[in-house]
Amino acid sequence: MFLMNWWYAVAWCSDIGRTPFARMVCGEPLVLYRTATGAAVALEDRCCHRRLPLRMGTIVGDNLQCLYHGLTFDPRGRCVKVPGQDHIPPNACVRSYPVREAHGLVWVFIGDPQFADRVEVPDYHWITDEGWGAKGAYFPVKAHYLLIVENLLDLTHLAFVHATTIGNSAVVEGAQVQFRRTGDTVDVRRTMKNCDPPPTYVRAGGFKGKIDRWQYINFAPPGYVRLETGACHAGREDTADSGRITLRNLNIITPETETTTHYFWAQCHDFDPRNQKITDMLYEDVRTAFMQDVAVFENQQQSIALDPDAPEIDVKGDAGGLQARRIVQELLQRQAAGR
Amino acid sequence: MFLMNWWYAVAWCSDIGRTPFARMVCGEPLVLYRTATGAAVALEDRCCHRRLPLRMGTIVGDNLQCLYHGLTFDPRGRCVKVPGQDHIPPNACVRSYPVREAHGLVWVFIGDPQFADRVEVPDYHWITDEGWGAKGAYFPVKAHYLLIVENLLDLTHLAFVHATTIGNSAVVEGAQVQFRRTGDTVDVRRTMKNCDPPPTYVRAGGFKGKIDRWQYINFAPPGYVRLETGACHAGREDTADSGRITLRNLNIITPETETTTHYFWAQCHDFDPRNQKITDMLYEDVRTAFMQDVAVFENQQQSIALDPDAPEIDVKGDAGGLQARRIVQELLQRQAAGR
Amino acid sequence: MFLMNWWYAVAWCSDIGRTPFARMVCGEPLVLYRTATGAAVALEDRCCHRRLPLRMGTIVGDNLQCLYHGLTFDPRGRCVKVPGQDHIPPNACVRSYPVREAHGLVWVFIGDPQFADRVEVPDYHWITDEGWGAKGAYFPVKAHYLLIVENLLDLTHLAFVHATTIGNSAVVEGAQVQFRRTGDTVDVRRTMKNCDPPPTYVRAGGFKGKIDRWQYINFAPPGYVRLETGACHAGREDTADSGRITLRNLNIITPETETTTHYFWAQCHDFDPRNQKITDMLYEDVRTAFMQDVAVFENQQQSIALDPDAPEIDVKGDAGGLQARRIVQELLQRQAAGR
Repeated sequence: MFLMNWWYAVAWCSDIGRTPFARMVCGEPLVLYRTATGAAVALEDRCCHRRLPLRMGTIVGDNLQCLYHGLTFDPRGRCVKVPGQDHIPPNACVRSYPVREAHGLVWVFIGDPQFADRVEVPDYHWITDEGWGAKGAYFPVKAHYLLIVENLLDLTHLAFVHATTIGNSAVVEGAQVQFRRTGDTVDVRRTMKNCDPPPTYVRAGGFKGKIDRWQYINFAPPGYVRLETGACHAGREDTADSGRITLRNLNIITPETETTTHYFWAQCHDFDPRNQKITDMLYEDVRTAFMQDVAVFENQQQSIALDPDAPEIDVKGDAGGLQARRIVQELLQRQAAGR
Repeated sequence: MFLMNWWYAVAWCSDIGRTPFARMVCGEPLVLYRTATGAAVALEDRCCHRRLPLRMGTIVGDNLQCLYHGLTFDPRGRCVKVPGQDHIPPNACVRSYPVREAHGLVWVFIGDPQFADRVEVPDYHWITDEGWGAKGAYFPVKAHYLLIVENLLDLTHLAFVHATTIGNSAVVEGAQVQFRRTGDTVDVRRTMKNCDPPPTYVRAGGFKGKIDRWQYINFAPPGYVRLETGACHAGREDTADSGRITLRNLNIITPETETTTHYFWAQCHDFDPRNQKITDMLYEDVRTAFMQDVAVFENQQQSIALDPDAPEIDVKGDAGGLQARRIVQELLQRQAAGR
Repeated sequence: MFLMNWWYAVAWCSDIGRTPFARMVCGEPLVLYRTATGAAVALEDRCCHRRLPLRMGTIVGDNLQCLYHGLTFDPRGRCVKVPGQDHIPPNACVRSYPVREAHGLVWVFIGDPQFADRVEVPDYHWITDEGWGAKGAYFPVKAHYLLIVENLLDLTHLAFVHATTIGNSAVVEGAQVQFRRTGDTVDVRRTMKNCDPPPTYVRAGGFKGKIDRWQYINFAPPGYVRLETGACHAGREDTADSGRITLRNLNIITPETETTTHYFWAQCHDFDPRNQKITDMLYEDVRTAFMQDVAVFENQQQSIALDPDAPEIDVKGDAGGLQARRIVQELLQRQAAGR
């Protein structure tokens, strides 16, 4: 069961070109390509004739021709040619998905296409904004997408999983945490005053003494998690020489199947934004941290598969994640009820 | 569900010797070997005692001795020795399958052995006939066997999948097609007049100008598909210098499981039959084409597994394949009804 | 379905140290480690919070800290720390398993811990007894554990599977066999008089002529199989120069899942017990033989999986194995009935 009628990120814009690109989203097989003028197209990756994946086919002009018998589909998924006959059966078509390109990503609308215009692609403008340095990656993850959402909404794990990069004990023992649900979104605000800077912050901000640090996390369904994090010299937040740095950690988490996920993320910084060394350093540290997280997700998933009904206990740090799970649950119920 | 009471090709004759050879056919595990005098034997590949595959055993004279406790089975599957005791339990036996060798292949009768003599091994004599040059291969295919049958009954795919060898646009746009069901067999006759020769035909027949080309396809259940194909100089079919070449493309398609197949095929030619260069060239071209087909079958199978109930549309070229599927369906229904 | 309330061997003592060691037993995921003072601990390998396997965590003093959010568990499985909060939820705990170390192995009690003290760890003292030379190994086996038990209770297979080491035709054709069930144990006593020594016995005992040989096999549930085997010069059993050698082949067979097994075994000898060459030679021969057996087990398992309901016939040699299966069956029935 996946949330329908949402925009899901399916690829980086640079992944899609004039050769077919296949990706499964929410259990649906998609094939993407660009028309002659560069427009991104997303079609069902299965010919309506003998079900060969269209990813094996050839782009002809703006259309995609099946490898097997040459049936050719236009960007709207309509069959425009059946070799060997003039008549095109009226039901000869494949699904076509609404597509948007924004923030460096290609988004497809999974659900009923008539609702696509009423739903907005989420804001991830920092990835492409000139005022920000940014670098991201794609990770295929063998785990349910909500395990990743949950991870990002409880940053106490930084102290344990990421002690060599973005975490230290202050994020768990010294944090003040507020959380708030607004409609179907969740905000978790964490502030840590007068604490030691973690290794990545020392490298990025050059901090030598204590810092004030914050982590503002926003979740919106189905799998959008945006973090604003930052730090300044302890007690000097509003001063001219606060040393303040602001980072955006942006996560776009797209279900592939019930147990696998496409995980897109980018790390952005507003200080010295054209300094590629800073961009690279931050990216490498976050990449190191996130690969540790992927090992966590995949081991959780295997552990859950062993005994899906094993109980879990909750702790204080779970408040945000539990709320996110509740929102998804409510939306799935509404969806099942046809609302 | 497989068709019972048919001869299925299980191996090339040269595959079977004095060491056990295992192959699953229609979901049944078989082990084959030759007796001291060279007769091929096919037994159930599972000892009736503790179920060890007999393929791990040893041939002793005409019999097969299980590796584990030495129970020994004769070519009829009867246990003739239980080490450590004189008494042989009356139910100590494994299934024995009727075997024929014909046309370079070993055939086993899957079903009730008492019907074996009433059913004929199909005619594939071209493979071993001295008047023909022939060369073949075995492909293990991860797809249902009827996907291969269907492929061979709609040769329009040659224009798309095999444009570098045996296909060009003439096979789809310039073909006259007739098809006829006779009893439980299907014939598809395709003729293409005054068309360009495909690359393989140029290489084999030395054609420089237009040709008349034909493809006569015969299907008989469960998975026998025999093609007679050929070409001559356009409009000179009945003349002395027609340049006519005739080829036989022979396919013996044996289900291994519901989703995997043993695919035996051979390519034969009646012109210059002892010219190994011609034989090799034709074989290599068909092999190239058929490996492209295998990629098609396996991707179809995966696509079908993703959504087994996804609908398909049919086009004109499917007439033969649809009829073949109908015949298999009817035979399965008759079989289920016990007729 | 596994037998509950038994001691199962889970690792060699030397496997367990100050880093977590994971192993599944009877379908239950376990993690083992040693406390600061060296005591072995066995916990459920799944954090009660977000189900990450605890094997990914860190040993802190006597406790195990989860990698993910730092929840820390003591050797009894009680959570003693939830980072970021003072309150520890009363249900924050993981299963703790009773542990014993004996005979070079770590044993865990699978079932209800309150019964652990009423059940004895089986006697395998020969492995560590100074009067014996001993060497063993661990084999992971992709087969049900009773296939291994059954193998050891019918040694006629030595003549076929192990003719290069511990077997020859005498073990099947020349053996006198008695078997007896006592409570829930089975004894099979095999004696072979005036027979040729198998290769391993020639190497170990230096026998040149005929020997008298014996194999006394004891089975106790769930998967304990102890063999005393030996030989002497034929007809000189009770003489001073009998040349008698006695061996112990010890098998501890622990189910991992329904189709996989942890197989621990050791080969021991009472003659020249400090002679490492003898120990190594016997170990190598038995290892060679047991690796042949593993191939048998795994092929049996695959054959059974193909057709779980295929019938089996029994022969004389099966008397011990059938009795062992019956005992396990009876115990499972008693267990299901709650007795």
